[in-house]
Amino acid sequence: MSGSRTQAGDRLARIREQTPLVHSITNYVVMNFTANVLLAMGASPVMAHAGEEVEEMTSLAGALVLNIGTLSAAWIGSMHKAGEKAAECKIPIVLDPVGSGATAYRTKTARELLEQRRITLIRGNASEILSLRGEDSQTKGVDSLHSVEEAVESAELLAGELGVALAITGPVDLVTDGRRTLRILNGHPLMGRITGTGCAATVISAAFLAPDAEPVEAAASALAFFGLAGERAGENASAPGSFQVALIDELYRITPEELAAGVRIEEA
Amino acid sequence: MSGSRTQAGDRLARIREQTPLVHSITNYVVMNFTANVLLAMGASPVMAHAGEEVEEMTSLAGALVLNIGTLSAAWIGSMHKAGEKAAECKIPIVLDPVGSGATAYRTKTARELLEQRRITLIRGNASEILSLRGEDSQTKGVDSLHSVEEAVESAELLAGELGVALAITGPVDLVTDGRRTLRILNGHPLMGRITGTGCAATVISAAFLAPDAEPVEAAASALAFFGLAGERAGENASAPGSFQVALIDELYRITPEELAAGVRIEEA
Amino acid sequence: MSGSRTQAGDRLARIREQTPLVHSITNYVVMNFTANVLLAMGASPVMAHAGEEVEEMTSLAGALVLNIGTLSAAWIGSMHKAGEKAAECKIPIVLDPVGSGATAYRTKTARELLEQRRITLIRGNASEILSLRGEDSQTKGVDSLHSVEEAVESAELLAGELGVALAITGPVDLVTDGRRTLRILNGHPLMGRITGTGCAATVISAAFLAPDAEPVEAAASALAFFGLAGERAGENASAPGSFQVALIDELYRITPEELAAGVRIEEA
Repeated sequence: MSGSRTQAGDRLARIREQTPLVHSITNYVVMNFTANVLLAMGASPVMAHAGEEVEEMTSLAGALVLNIGTLSAAWIGSMHKAGEKAAECKIPIVLDPVGSGATAYRTKTARELLEQRRITLIRGNASEILSLRGEDSQTKGVDSLHSVEEAVESAELLAGELGVALAITGPVDLVTDGRRTLRILNGHPLMGRITGTGCAATVISAAFLAPDAEPVEAAASALAFFGLAGERAGENASAPGSFQVALIDELYRITPEELAAGVRIEEA
Repeated sequence: MSGSRTQAGDRLARIREQTPLVHSITNYVVMNFTANVLLAMGASPVMAHAGEEVEEMTSLAGALVLNIGTLSAAWIGSMHKAGEKAAECKIPIVLDPVGSGATAYRTKTARELLEQRRITLIRGNASEILSLRGEDSQTKGVDSLHSVEEAVESAELLAGELGVALAITGPVDLVTDGRRTLRILNGHPLMGRITGTGCAATVISAAFLAPDAEPVEAAASALAFFGLAGERAGENASAPGSFQVALIDELYRITPEELAAGVRIEEA
Repeated sequence: MSGSRTQAGDRLARIREQTPLVHSITNYVVMNFTANVLLAMGASPVMAHAGEEVEEMTSLAGALVLNIGTLSAAWIGSMHKAGEKAAECKIPIVLDPVGSGATAYRTKTARELLEQRRITLIRGNASEILSLRGEDSQTKGVDSLHSVEEAVESAELLAGELGVALAITGPVDLVTDGRRTLRILNGHPLMGRITGTGCAATVISAAFLAPDAEPVEAAASALAFFGLAGERAGENASAPGSFQVALIDELYRITPEELAAGVRIEEA
């Protein structure tokens, strides 16, 4: 897919030029890590969750991330407010339904955001994505009990029904809008041994969507970029602590040309 | 203590097989670090604090951690709810009374959790543990002003009175249930120069308790494992930033056999 | 400025002797990082934000940090309570107006803290500082759209009007109390590619103010120390992940003598 190759490189170049502001309403666990991920790759992170200011902050941003990893009622209210403003400003919204399927509260919150807000892309693991359609899915805390392949059909149906793009991450990642499905082969097993790599995939996708509203190609480029950073990190690091450090380094180092050369995306 | 040696190794092997889910209601400062600690060692972390979902999340878990490091009223309510559910599900609860003795609010909260919930293990520094018995203890913020040795007698009495196991960490760690007391000699001075190593000892203890409700041996194994990781990290790192990275790496690398060989536990 | 040199070294030596407790009411994104910064350099961090305990915690501390990076109403109330107690205890307060100018809520909160509490030092970027005087300033999320030089005059006027010291950080840092202005030349470009380096400059300044209420020299020493750590980190690290690790290492390693030798402060 030489088209995907060039597009991924061009998209990264554009991010580095524009440093899009990504507004995240996200969980406490990953705030620091995902902010560092965005800064390293060349985007600009901001976190704000108060009802008093979320709309104003969203209106300054190039993309909005709604991540339900450590929920509470006030934060859900702010997610809806920010989501409404994002639709008004025509900026993309990426939903990360962390732990959907594990508790009814998370499943309900994720579905309501999906139904009531204009979500551009959902990024989750297979269990989380399955739970959004009311499938009999189980999520073990925040980890998936299902493979990406088990979730393909549901994802394609869900995407078609709701007019949203879906990115399901795992050993192989999959992006679909119901009409077109791409598989992203880049990645490294140690990415599953660091907290917040799923959430990082989400904010990277948001940064790639900021200058470009076409979600399937943008999300696939983002996941290929993140996966390539993982592959390169894994060349020098063999355990999660040093791998995480190297991963941030690679997000900073990979050039658009190196990304274009390293992308492994397949039409599914 | 060749018994402790073998047991520690066996316990680590069981964690790596079972990847127990540890549900933490904990402080903002250490959420990312303790999640990475659990993932590196082979367990599975989840954080959830909303009253709407804590019970459901606890019911999926193999152990519950209640850590009062950045308290507020809503979080205390959720700790009690989750604690009640944990007792119902017969899963172990580890209480980390961060800063107990520093403010009346923390001391009161820690004592109420201790009195009203079925706590399996308390992990704290000497000042925090002393404060739980109403001793004239002082805690400097979240750091101890007392040595572990000063707290031994109080800890043994408290453990006996309340039917709870206590783990007091410091240069030498101590675990007691009032009948039996073990000293753990593993560790490294740089562990005191990273935030959240106490909280990490707590979640590691929770992971060791998940497959095995016998708290004294399980907690001693956990602290020996963590201390050994610190010793190995200290062989290559001489300052806190690189030490923290190496510590996570070692929690991932240490095999059950290496743990059995490296354990330094003494009957007190 | 051999005076500044010696003073910076002496101040660092005093911090290492006294390990001042720095109480931060701060944003979720940087809590872990700034706690590790304080521990590495030889100070002692504590975070507490509940209305029920902030005053008691502040009364134990040597300095108070108020950082508005992830605001909400309850936290603002606690900042005022803690600020009142700090004035009563005569301990310095450092205000970090993160994102002031980006949303009206942040600008209003920062100004009210500044007007109603006895702030010793404000540490911000140029946009944030300009926003405090009602200048037509813009803040892009939490990043500055103005250079330090653009903000000098406003900073000197604001400092004089309010009797507060200001530290404006950027490629070159500037500290002023309206009468005396110092420029700090230490630093490294990668400091802008890690989240929370501004917030770290704030807590380091608070630690330097704890044993010494003279804010201009203390803040300049703090920023020179942090900048020197950045310079040394940059000698071995060329990307943000490894740079952050090295930065923490250097905050631990730099001796008072090395600081005195490395300080680059100029009278403006």
